[in-house]
Amino acid sequence: MSRAVVGGVGGSPFGYAAVMSDHAPDPVTAAAAPEEEVVTPPPPQPDYPRYRVEPGEQISLADLSPDETEHYERKRDVKDELAVHRERIADVQTRLYAEQRKSLLIVLQAMDTGGKDGAIKHVFRGVNPQGCRVWSFKAPSTEESSHDFLWRYHLRTPSRGMITIFNRSHYEDVLVVRVKDLVAEEVWRARYDTICDFERMLARENVVILSSSCTSPRTSRSAAWRRAWRIRASTGSSPPTISRSAPPGMPTSGR
Amino acid sequence: MSRAVVGGVGGSPFGYAAVMSDHAPDPVTAAAAPEEEVVTPPPPQPDYPRYRVEPGEQISLADLSPDETEHYERKRDVKDELAVHRERIADVQTRLYAEQRKSLLIVLQAMDTGGKDGAIKHVFRGVNPQGCRVWSFKAPSTEESSHDFLWRYHLRTPSRGMITIFNRSHYEDVLVVRVKDLVAEEVWRARYDTICDFERMLARENVVILSSSCTSPRTSRSAAWRRAWRIRASTGSSPPTISRSAPPGMPTSGR
Amino acid sequence: MSRAVVGGVGGSPFGYAAVMSDHAPDPVTAAAAPEEEVVTPPPPQPDYPRYRVEPGEQISLADLSPDETEHYERKRDVKDELAVHRERIADVQTRLYAEQRKSLLIVLQAMDTGGKDGAIKHVFRGVNPQGCRVWSFKAPSTEESSHDFLWRYHLRTPSRGMITIFNRSHYEDVLVVRVKDLVAEEVWRARYDTICDFERMLARENVVILSSSCTSPRTSRSAAWRRAWRIRASTGSSPPTISRSAPPGMPTSGR
Amino acid sequence: MSRAVVGGVGGSPFGYAAVMSDHAPDPVTAAAAPEEEVVTPPPPQPDYPRYRVEPGEQISLADLSPDETEHYERKRDVKDELAVHRERIADVQTRLYAEQRKSLLIVLQAMDTGGKDGAIKHVFRGVNPQGCRVWSFKAPSTEESSHDFLWRYHLRTPSRGMITIFNRSHYEDVLVVRVKDLVAEEVWRARYDTICDFERMLARENVVILSSSCTSPRTSRSAAWRRAWRIRASTGSSPPTISRSAPPGMPTSGR
Repeated sequence: MSRAVVGGVGGSPFGYAAVMSDHAPDPVTAAAAPEEEVVTPPPPQPDYPRYRVEPGEQISLADLSPDETEHYERKRDVKDELAVHRERIADVQTRLYAEQRKSLLIVLQAMDTGGKDGAIKHVFRGVNPQGCRVWSFKAPSTEESSHDFLWRYHLRTPSRGMITIFNRSHYEDVLVVRVKDLVAEEVWRARYDTICDFERMLARENVVILSSSCTSPRTSRSAAWRRAWRIRASTGSSPPTISRSAPPGMPTSGR
Repeated sequence: MSRAVVGGVGGSPFGYAAVMSDHAPDPVTAAAAPEEEVVTPPPPQPDYPRYRVEPGEQISLADLSPDETEHYERKRDVKDELAVHRERIADVQTRLYAEQRKSLLIVLQAMDTGGKDGAIKHVFRGVNPQGCRVWSFKAPSTEESSHDFLWRYHLRTPSRGMITIFNRSHYEDVLVVRVKDLVAEEVWRARYDTICDFERMLARENVVILSSSCTSPRTSRSAAWRRAWRIRASTGSSPPTISRSAPPGMPTSGR
Repeated sequence: MSRAVVGGVGGSPFGYAAVMSDHAPDPVTAAAAPEEEVVTPPPPQPDYPRYRVEPGEQISLADLSPDETEHYERKRDVKDELAVHRERIADVQTRLYAEQRKSLLIVLQAMDTGGKDGAIKHVFRGVNPQGCRVWSFKAPSTEESSHDFLWRYHLRTPSRGMITIFNRSHYEDVLVVRVKDLVAEEVWRARYDTICDFERMLARENVVILSSSCTSPRTSRSAAWRRAWRIRASTGSSPPTISRSAPPGMPTSGR
Repeated sequence: MSRAVVGGVGGSPFGYAAVMSDHAPDPVTAAAAPEEEVVTPPPPQPDYPRYRVEPGEQISLADLSPDETEHYERKRDVKDELAVHRERIADVQTRLYAEQRKSLLIVLQAMDTGGKDGAIKHVFRGVNPQGCRVWSFKAPSTEESSHDFLWRYHLRTPSRGMITIFNRSHYEDVLVVRVKDLVAEEVWRARYDTICDFERMLARENVVILSSSCTSPRTSRSAAWRRAWRIRASTGSSPPTISRSAPPGMPTSGR
C-alpha cells in the first residue's frame, strides 16, 4: 500500500510531488510523469537523492562528510539556486494550503550551531506565513514533562493544509536522554518503537513527514547550511536504520 | 515484561493495586500480598472479575445481558456499597497524586443514555477535584477534525499523578464513523492499529488505561448504571479482541 | 447596573444565589426571597458575612486574627457542618452545570502552607468532577512568561457551566514580584488596573468570581483551614480596597 | 506616559521604530532621529500617514474612497515598492525576534473578499516563519463560544519576539453580532470597553498592536490590496473613535 513517501521524488529534496499530487498515485510513478499542473517548473539539476535515505536503508552518518561542498564554491552559487527553490516551495505550498487534504511536517534535527535556524530562515522565508508554523523545542516545561514524551510534539503537528517545521524534535528524546543518561535504557529503547508508531500513524492520517539531520562542517561554517543537509525519508512502513556509529544529531537504531 | 496491567487485581474493578503499587511488581503478586500501606481496607466482596476482559481474551458483548442485576435488588444496596468504594477511590487517589509517578486514564464508552454521565457523577464525586479531570468528547471542532483523529484525545491525556476520565473517546472514531459510513473502510480499519499503538505507548509512559463499555438494560434504566459496567483491560501488549457480534458501544476488532 | 455580585448572599460564603438564580435579579433581593427552587435547604446558621469584603470596602487583613476559632472547638464541629455544605454545593453545581449560562471562578490565594490544597480537598470533594476543574499555578513556564502575565490565567478560566478553582492566581503577579523585587514598580502598579479590568470583563461575560485569601493561624494549623477563610467579593464595578498594612497573601491596592 | 504607539512613525505604516527601538524613547522623537541601527534604510517616500488614525481621532470610513489609487497606476509600481518594504520588514523582524522584548500583533479586519489573505501573502511572505504566526478566526468552536468572547484571541496573542497576525479578530464580536443581531445591545456595547481594556493591557505588556481595516474598491479588485489599507493606531491610552457612519469592517464606537 502506498503511504506518504517523502523525499527526493522528482529530483528534489522537498518531495513536492509526494506532498502535492492530486491523485496520490505511487509517488515514484508520479515523479516520472511530467508535473504539468505545477506552476513553477522543477528546479534545475543537480538534485540531492544521494542525501536521501530510503525506508529500510542502512546508512552511517560517519560516511558522509559534513565538509563536502559538492560543486558549490561560492556562497553566491547557493544563493541563486536557493531563490529558485524558494519560489517553487511557495507555489507548492499554495496548492497544499488550497487542497486542505494533506499536511507537511518537516523535522529539523541537529546539534547546537548545526544550522537549524539558518535553514528555516533561508529556505522557508518565501512561504506564506498563513500556511506555515515553526515550533522550537527546548527543555520541556513542567506540564510537558509530566506527560508522555510525545505529547508536546503531537500537540503541534500540522493541521490539514499546513506546513509545520519542528526545530528540534521528538528525536531528542532518544538522543539527549541517552547522552546525558537521563532515562533508563529500557525507557529510551522502547521509544524507538513509539516514535515509529507515531510517525506511521501520522503518515496514515495524511501527514507527510520529512526528517532531516543537519551537521556542521568541521572546518568553516559559512555557506555550509546547504551542503550539510542530510535527508532522511520517514515513511509509515519501515523507517531507515542508521548505524550506531552515527554522530549525535540523528537517532541511531536502538535495536 | 510487565507493563501496566489494568482491571480487577485484588478483586476490584478499579485496579487499585496496579495503579498504586510503590514498587511496581507483577500486579498479580502484588494483589495477593496484603496491601498494608493502603489506608482504607479493600471493599467487601463481591468483586467483578467476571466483567473484566483480559488481554487477548475473546468476548462477545452479546453474551452479556445488560439486564443482569446480580444480587442487587434495591437501589439502596448499590448505594451503600458504592459509598465504601468511593471512600477507597479517594484514598487511592491521594496516593496516586502524591507519588506523581503514574496516571490513570478511564475511558467511558457507551451509547446515548448509556449511563456515562451518571457513572462519573456517582463513582467519582468523592475524589479530590485537584487530581481529576473529565473531558467530554462531542463532534470535533474544525481545528480538531483537521488533525489526525487521535490528536484531540492525546492532548487531554492525564499528566503524572492525575486521573482523567474520557466521556466518550477515540473509540468513537472506529464506531460512529462506521455506523454512519463517514470514512472509508481502509481508513477506519487502520485505526484499530493506531489505537492499539497509542494505548501501548501510553502504557509504556506510565498511563494506566481502564476502558469501560456501559450498556443500558433493555428494561428499566433506574439503578442500572452499576450492574451494566463492562470492564475492558487495556494493556500495552495485546488488546482484547471483541467479537463482531458485539453491539455498538465497544469497538469490535476490525481485523 | 448589577453585574455578578459574589459572596455571602443568603448567608453563605459560596454565593449560591448569585451563581444560580434563574432570573438573575438583584442578588440582594434574590437572597431575601426564599430559594424554593434549590433542592437542598440552605445550611444552618451561622454564616460568614463578617469575612466578606464588599466592593469598595476598605479592610486591613491585619485586623483579622488568623487564630480566631469562632465557636468551633473540636475538629468534629467543623466536619459535620462542612458535610452539609458539601451536599449543598453539589446540588447547586448540578444546576450551574445544567443551565450552561454562568460559570464560577474560585480564586484561592495564600502563603505557602496557607491551606489552599486542604481547602480544595475538603470543600470540593463532593462536586461532580465533570463540572469542576482545578488549576495550580507555579512558576511560569518559558512560554507562559513570554506572554502578558494574565495570559496563562485567562486561558484557564471556566467555560459556561463549570466551576474552576485557581490554586494561586494572577494575584501573585502583584505580590511575589513585589516582595522579591522581580519587576519595576511601574509595571506591578499598572497590573492592579489590569487585574480589575480583567475581572470586570469576566464578570460581564457571566463568570462569577469568588476570591479568597487563606491565612494560617499563628499557633496550630490543625483544623484551621475553615476559620481562616477570608472572602473577598470581586465584582465588575469597584473592587475592594485592601489597606497597605495587609500581610502577603492578598494584593493591597497599588494606588 | 508613552506606551506603545503604533503606525507611521518614520514614514512607514509598519511602525518600525516603535517596535524596534532599543531604548524605547518617545516614538515621535525616535522617528525624527536617524535610525542608524536599522540595517536596511527606510523605504522611499511616499509614506502613508494619511491612512493612520491617531488615538482619540475621529474619522469616518465613508470619507475614504476605497477606489483611491494614489499615484499607482500599474500593478508593477506596487510590486517594486512592496519588494523594498518586504526586505525591510524582514530586517526589522530579525531584530524584534533577537531582542525578545516586545511583540507585534497585526489585526487585519475586512469584509469577505476584502483582501486579508492577499495582504498577508504579499506583505509578509518575506518574514522568517519562525518568528511569525498567523491565526484565522472563523465561527467559534463550541469550546470557544462557551468562554468569554476575548478568550480565543488572548490565547493566540504573540509571545515576546514574535509577530502575530490576526486574520479577522475580536472586532468581529462587535460587528457581526450587531449586524446579525446575535447578542443583546447591552452585551455588545459593553464589549467596546472590554476591547479597549484588553488592548491597553497588551500595550502595557509590550505588545504593539497594529489594527487595519481593509476595504475592497468598488470597481476592480486587482492590485487594490495596497491602496486600500487603512491603518488604525491602537494605543493603551485612548483608542480612536470612528463615526457611526462607518461601513462594516471596522468597529464604530458603541458609545
